Amino acid sequence: MDIALLAHEQFPERAKTAVGVLRYGDQRVRAVIDRANAGDRVADHVTDVQDAPIVESMADVPDIDALVIGIAPIGGGFEESWRADVRSAIERGCDVIAGLHSFLADDEEFARLAAEYDCELRDLRRPPDDLTVADGTAGDVDPTVVLTVGTDCSSGKMTASYELRDAAREQGIDAAVVPTGQTGVLVEGWGIVVDRVIADFAAGAVERLVERATLDHDLVIVEGQGALAHPAYSGVTTSILHGAQPDSLVLCHVAGRTAVHGYEATAIPPVDEYADLYERVAAPVREAGVVAGMINTQSLADDAAAREAIEEYAAGLGVPATDPVRFGVDEGILEAIQ
Amino acid sequence: MDIALLAHEQFPERAKTAVGVLRYGDQRVRAVIDRANAGDRVADHVTDVQDAPIVESMADVPDIDALVIGIAPIGGGFEESWRADVRSAIERGCDVIAGLHSFLADDEEFARLAAEYDCELRDLRRPPDDLTVADGTAGDVDPTVVLTVGTDCSSGKMTASYELRDAAREQGIDAAVVPTGQTGVLVEGWGIVVDRVIADFAAGAVERLVERATLDHDLVIVEGQGALAHPAYSGVTTSILHGAQPDSLVLCHVAGRTAVHGYEATAIPPVDEYADLYERVAAPVREAGVVAGMINTQSLADDAAAREAIEEYAAGLGVPATDPVRFGVDEGILEAIQ
Repeated sequence: MDIALLAHEQFPERAKTAVGVLRYGDQRVRAVIDRANAGDRVADHVTDVQDAPIVESMADVPDIDALVIGIAPIGGGFEESWRADVRSAIERGCDVIAGLHSFLADDEEFARLAAEYDCELRDLRRPPDDLTVADGTAGDVDPTVVLTVGTDCSSGKMTASYELRDAAREQGIDAAVVPTGQTGVLVEGWGIVVDRVIADFAAGAVERLVERATLDHDLVIVEGQGALAHPAYSGVTTSILHGAQPDSLVLCHVAGRTAVHGYEATAIPPVDEYADLYERVAAPVREAGVVAGMINTQSLADDAAAREAIEEYAAGLGVPATDPVRFGVDEGILEAIQ
Repeated sequence: MDIALLAHEQFPERAKTAVGVLRYGDQRVRAVIDRANAGDRVADHVTDVQDAPIVESMADVPDIDALVIGIAPIGGGFEESWRADVRSAIERGCDVIAGLHSFLADDEEFARLAAEYDCELRDLRRPPDDLTVADGTAGDVDPTVVLTVGTDCSSGKMTASYELRDAAREQGIDAAVVPTGQTGVLVEGWGIVVDRVIADFAAGAVERLVERATLDHDLVIVEGQGALAHPAYSGVTTSILHGAQPDSLVLCHVAGRTAVHGYEATAIPPVDEYADLYERVAAPVREAGVVAGMINTQSLADDAAAREAIEEYAAGLGVPATDPVRFGVDEGILEAIQ
């Protein structure tokens, strides 16, 4: 499938979905739409992902099958400054895919245009109709279940999940990711965006995903969301922790980040305390230790500084750690999660 | 307002809403509908609440303004065995009020009948349309905010909230309850049923309620939901803990309960550990200590055994404790929460 990624003024740092699809999706990205970086290429900003031109608007995008909204502001609303591009995509007969809290299909103009031009509006965050409360049974499955958790939002949980999966597959292990966020659902073609579910059913949604994935795979890596000490999103995090009932946890962190992104008055606890907090909250439902650490060292220019940050992080946690994008996932970490 | 409470086969132990309205609501309860106890009176089962006859079906209910669904099965679905009573209520011109996850107004037959007989179908769990993520600002308010938390579901958090409020009011303190569940919303006439909110917005919903209540009152008692180590509902609990940013916590427990109700494989941690867990999870967002304990001793026949259970509970927590229904809320506890 050929797509364009809309990421106005946010590419690449605040465009998690766009970068996730560029890195892990099997869609062919024909363009990134970002008026702030138009004229550049993706490779000028992010390496190790598929390259594509960055353009001003839909008018500069070649033939595509779908326009994907690749950014999600806090609150998940639709920004009116994107409307012209979405309208233009529909008028060119493209489907539009979004993971916003406000659904494209509920927008009167888009719904009318989509009907007129015979396009699909795919809202990845729309939950299934038949969710219910968790039975507390995800821990009964045989395959190994690993959950990526974080010290903050946007701390690399999805990236860690995919890098762990790929490293495991290279060793011949039948590993799969359980997608719980919009990018994962887009990349995998299944899953549930857990933060959009009725709060009472969030753990039940994760339980269902884990029980499905463990039917077919030997190692299941659940993509975590939010953070346990986050002022706004901790509920989703806790629902995933208790709904997935994982065997072990991998703690993700951004090097140098000391306050919660967007909530700067809230300090991020030291990583050893944070790991301990996850383990203590997990334990009454199912014992799960933090067995490995993943740290995003993108902000550190040279590899020596990055290695030092990783060593400090590993020492703090008392478990092996890596930056999976910069240095890959080694056998020590793979052994730790099995 | 004159009402009847539907509580088939669940009254009183598993009919939290019915008992809550009987105890704290200003509605006049003309009958409880429970086919298993028809012929008894409320007073045969629960003391210290308004009395009413228990009847077989709507056919035995005198003139009322509204039928209230007073029970909520796990999952919050509508049970077909209630349909005849609801239908009959609507055909008699009564409104129907429910706090189920599945909305009465979405039921084709009820919607059609309600239109025909000009009745209102009030779904207490329907969330406001304009919720969003928390700003993390509830801790900035001046009045004292207390949150009731529990070692399990149905552990007396709502009861504790109302008993604390009433004791405070008797001392001349302007105290109010922030309702976060269906019974509280029914009793207070405002509030949000937080477990029905989109998971991402649950903390934001609580923040909004706290910021509203603290405009008008000096002591605000937030009704907690679920439990932090509950396999299914911990996400809602955590959202309330971080969304409300309380000054202190009151831990509620049921004497003798050692496993999570309905999840018997999951043990309830010892109360001192449980209090510690709440404090540790609260701390990174806002420090809040467990300053008092509330214990439901209903299962203990004599007062001496109840007092012993309370003493043991208080000693375990290291703070004052009481059974607020059996022995009331004394000044020591009121001082502790201020």
